[in-house]
Amino acid sequence: MDCIFCKIISGDIPAIKVLDEERVIAFMDINPSAKGHLLVVPKRHAENIFEIEKDDLSAVFHAVKRCAMAIKEALNADGATVLQLNGKASDQVIPHLHVHIIPRWNNDGLSISTWEMKPGNMEEVQALADQVKKYMPAY
Amino acid sequence: MDCIFCKIISGDIPAIKVLDEERVIAFMDINPSAKGHLLVVPKRHAENIFEIEKDDLSAVFHAVKRCAMAIKEALNADGATVLQLNGKASDQVIPHLHVHIIPRWNNDGLSISTWEMKPGNMEEVQALADQVKKYMPAY
Repeated sequence: MDCIFCKIISGDIPAIKVLDEERVIAFMDINPSAKGHLLVVPKRHAENIFEIEKDDLSAVFHAVKRCAMAIKEALNADGATVLQLNGKASDQVIPHLHVHIIPRWNNDGLSISTWEMKPGNMEEVQALADQVKKYMPAY
Repeated sequence: MDCIFCKIISGDIPAIKVLDEERVIAFMDINPSAKGHLLVVPKRHAENIFEIEKDDLSAVFHAVKRCAMAIKEALNADGATVLQLNGKASDQVIPHLHVHIIPRWNNDGLSISTWEMKPGNMEEVQALADQVKKYMPAY
């Protein structure tokens, strides 16, 4: 299987994780659209929302909720944008389901139109992950 | 409660529904970003993902999956964008959790940056809803 997210899940490719549970992992996006941008991913490979099995889907979005709560507290965010792209027609790049959580602050000037794949500063990303983990609600 | 989505749920405000179940309704967005743009909403009021109760959250995203499958089949879409905004900082307008499902086609030229609140043609929206309902997978 030549899937980059499956390799992150197996540990063959490193990632800065904030959550690692039975069905789900969450890790920092290395091309963050905003500070604290992270991804929630089911461990069992499913390409998109059309394919994912029901219990994995529930687990993914329960993790999305908890990660959103954690980034809100950890980064003092005012809100969060949750985005999940299905298919190349929708600009999905990695064909393994993933949910973007992008922390938002009032008047942050961020728009999804300004989305760029810009590598983040990895030390900063690691520090943000450490903050987020401190505030992660228990399952 | 002065919530427009609660009033749609109670039937006090009309909507073109494609799904109406124990915990969830789905209905056509009256300002569609694309043909078939619809919203999935929990019946029990929750302002955002930070607040929604776990079983409602699972029900919402299971409905999102089924609605996405239905619009893909019904409208011959190539993909779907799933978007859920939390807080005014994230441009959430109606403070009752809702998930946007926006059908996508290859090279449709749609970008979330072109998002406009443009009233749809209601006859066309009704016809699209009728199509979507035909393809809705059972629970």
